[in-house]
Amino acid sequence: MTKPDLAMKPKLSTISFLTDYGLKDEFVGVVKSVIRTIAPDIAVIDISHDIEPHDIRAGGLALARAVQYMAPGVVLGVVDPGVATNRKAVAIEVADGAAYLIGPDNGLFAPAVSLVGGATGAVILDNTDYHLAAPGPTFDGRDVFAPVAAHLCSGVPFAELGTQMDPAGLVPGILPVSQVADDGSITAEVLWVDRFGNLQLNVDPEDIEVWGEFIQVEGGRATRTAKRVVSFADIGTGSVGVIIDSYGLVALAVDQGSAAMELAAQEGSQLTLREADGPQGAPSPVSIQTKPTTIPPVNPELLEGGQ
Amino acid sequence: MTKPDLAMKPKLSTISFLTDYGLKDEFVGVVKSVIRTIAPDIAVIDISHDIEPHDIRAGGLALARAVQYMAPGVVLGVVDPGVATNRKAVAIEVADGAAYLIGPDNGLFAPAVSLVGGATGAVILDNTDYHLAAPGPTFDGRDVFAPVAAHLCSGVPFAELGTQMDPAGLVPGILPVSQVADDGSITAEVLWVDRFGNLQLNVDPEDIEVWGEFIQVEGGRATRTAKRVVSFADIGTGSVGVIIDSYGLVALAVDQGSAAMELAAQEGSQLTLREADGPQGAPSPVSIQTKPTTIPPVNPELLEGGQ
Amino acid sequence: MTKPDLAMKPKLSTISFLTDYGLKDEFVGVVKSVIRTIAPDIAVIDISHDIEPHDIRAGGLALARAVQYMAPGVVLGVVDPGVATNRKAVAIEVADGAAYLIGPDNGLFAPAVSLVGGATGAVILDNTDYHLAAPGPTFDGRDVFAPVAAHLCSGVPFAELGTQMDPAGLVPGILPVSQVADDGSITAEVLWVDRFGNLQLNVDPEDIEVWGEFIQVEGGRATRTAKRVVSFADIGTGSVGVIIDSYGLVALAVDQGSAAMELAAQEGSQLTLREADGPQGAPSPVSIQTKPTTIPPVNPELLEGGQ
Repeated sequence: MTKPDLAMKPKLSTISFLTDYGLKDEFVGVVKSVIRTIAPDIAVIDISHDIEPHDIRAGGLALARAVQYMAPGVVLGVVDPGVATNRKAVAIEVADGAAYLIGPDNGLFAPAVSLVGGATGAVILDNTDYHLAAPGPTFDGRDVFAPVAAHLCSGVPFAELGTQMDPAGLVPGILPVSQVADDGSITAEVLWVDRFGNLQLNVDPEDIEVWGEFIQVEGGRATRTAKRVVSFADIGTGSVGVIIDSYGLVALAVDQGSAAMELAAQEGSQLTLREADGPQGAPSPVSIQTKPTTIPPVNPELLEGGQ
Repeated sequence: MTKPDLAMKPKLSTISFLTDYGLKDEFVGVVKSVIRTIAPDIAVIDISHDIEPHDIRAGGLALARAVQYMAPGVVLGVVDPGVATNRKAVAIEVADGAAYLIGPDNGLFAPAVSLVGGATGAVILDNTDYHLAAPGPTFDGRDVFAPVAAHLCSGVPFAELGTQMDPAGLVPGILPVSQVADDGSITAEVLWVDRFGNLQLNVDPEDIEVWGEFIQVEGGRATRTAKRVVSFADIGTGSVGVIIDSYGLVALAVDQGSAAMELAAQEGSQLTLREADGPQGAPSPVSIQTKPTTIPPVNPELLEGGQ
Repeated sequence: MTKPDLAMKPKLSTISFLTDYGLKDEFVGVVKSVIRTIAPDIAVIDISHDIEPHDIRAGGLALARAVQYMAPGVVLGVVDPGVATNRKAVAIEVADGAAYLIGPDNGLFAPAVSLVGGATGAVILDNTDYHLAAPGPTFDGRDVFAPVAAHLCSGVPFAELGTQMDPAGLVPGILPVSQVADDGSITAEVLWVDRFGNLQLNVDPEDIEVWGEFIQVEGGRATRTAKRVVSFADIGTGSVGVIIDSYGLVALAVDQGSAAMELAAQEGSQLTLREADGPQGAPSPVSIQTKPTTIPPVNPELLEGGQ
């Protein structure tokens, strides 16, 4: 394993970078400066730095939505409320070395890793040869994760970065599952509220495939009847639409407005969907079935393409 | 037209990128990832991603302000309330192939295209060979515009991207024109409120060239006398200044404060300017003359320079 | 001095870029476009563009925190309330040409320059051969600083950029000094409130080295007893912790919350620290000793590393 870096280098020319650092402070710029000093030819692509502080779930879902589109290389992800505690710093190998994910072991990477087929290896980043000397212990993004990512891209073998660990021991991610009741209604969770106020749900289109044109949506403070549409412009002013979003999941939207405002919903909110025209009156005893969350399909065209 | 890409490649090494995606979600990062996967040597320069959602006018004006400074290449612009409707996706050629603009055909590019001499060609992006397979129809930035831009930069001929169309059929942009009344007063519109609260007006310096040092500004909720100055620091605390801004247009400013706050004005607000010392009393019947908006001059030094 | 650019080029391949431009307007994108047009192979790393408008102090401190991590090259910094006045535009040489800082002469660079050993040269940017023709005088970032930075990176000798000046004549930066009273208490100032609400103080760890585990913090509206901790997670819910931050200075923090909110403090706030368990009662006459601000140590590993 001492010289595979020549063959691998073309694959590790990009670092995809996500944090909760925000863009006001110089944190992101400093991390990029460290990377450029160590590995000047590596491109860094910002996925997002405006994850809410410490929101591991939101960071993990953003990585999951983005991962199938990322350029081959390293994912550097830092949402790290446990920095300077004994939480592990890790590098995770996926697809037998096609890509790596580097950051804290707190579940942040679990959804993305699962999407690309699971981890094929993991190391604890305890080889300080590839870290910076740190004036204080609270900025591992700068002092541990960035230099390790840069050195890995520069050809340092994965196994050199620290002690091997069983990937099965990595902290798992927790993805909410939607639930189908006996009456056919689905209790869903809002996975994501995007900039436009659209509500992505943990519901697959096929779960509601047989339903009619109208769907009743019950939230905490509002019940609305939503129409199935293809585009935002089809929704009609003041109405709520049900759309297949750009990740292939069911979403609620309002044309040129915010479904989040309309339904008083936020990330993590529970909503109940049922067919609006179906038999609603049958008061049969309701039993809950857990339905595994379905993950959006990988885009094979992109994964095969590129360099 | 099968091999002009060799000669063109040096000119298409930069994608200038503007959207209303915001930076919180991963949209911008995903688009850049798609570009890098297809065309790894292309640089992407962010012009802005914080255009207000669906604000085509603001996006178009930002592109117009920026276009003469852009590095040669492709402009990728996405402010696209009509995504997934039958609005056209287009690539527009300017200056006989010196640059291209790619995005929705909704007027977003019209001001910038006009500034650089008008379109010399246009294609409808209906050749799906250069698109990504899309899990849903609402993210054309990722699935259509980004891959098309990347393929164009990689040498795919413009005509390959889809069906040719007459550029005269592109949706025009609507730029507000200032109006000069018989009494010489000018009814102007606020084109842009920048971060510092400066109000850029659709008024050329020569329109007020013969006026004296003081100008009366009437807004909806305030009338102020503003002084002509060269720098913000010349304005004086609590006063409003009239300045030639960095794009060569007349702007209203407050030193270390916000003219927008001071005049209770926003983008699109109407303001009336008149010479403060001139004859104001003459109650002659007022007739309105439409004055064509003058566009800031192109910076020839930059356009000639570079590589 | 006509051909040193060959040797210097590898050192000037990065421009580290900080402004108060914000990211909503196209200012940052336009500056990068100008740089790319003149010097297409130079990488630009954003340090921050969300410095509060005109806040020279905050910009200067951000540069100071970042400078020791920056990739070798040019620092382009623009927080410039005096644009278009007679304030000087300058390029500052440090470490005999190892790096340069370009921007307004208003104290913005003083803390960073001091940190890297002081200025070894300075020029006033009055050679307009390396500027852009400007439609108006208020955007020197685009018209003066960016083209000068790009030309310097492209090999134009430093002395060509304008009239040499004595670096001793540069506007100095003003850094607040903490004060130690006779009773041992320290009156400190909040240098920085970061995204997470942590309060960085102008206090060195050694200033409080002999103190016990608990420290009393007096602010304007609150007095709290804070515990010394190593990590945020050690602080405990609802408590305030004293931590050595990632720049080696003393900071106040709240786990998964904001110390700024908890203590009603902001940048520039005065706080008094004293040992909580020490003799507090002694009402001896208090005399103030000025203590020079100590600057975080340079990270030698990074400075030597690279390439």
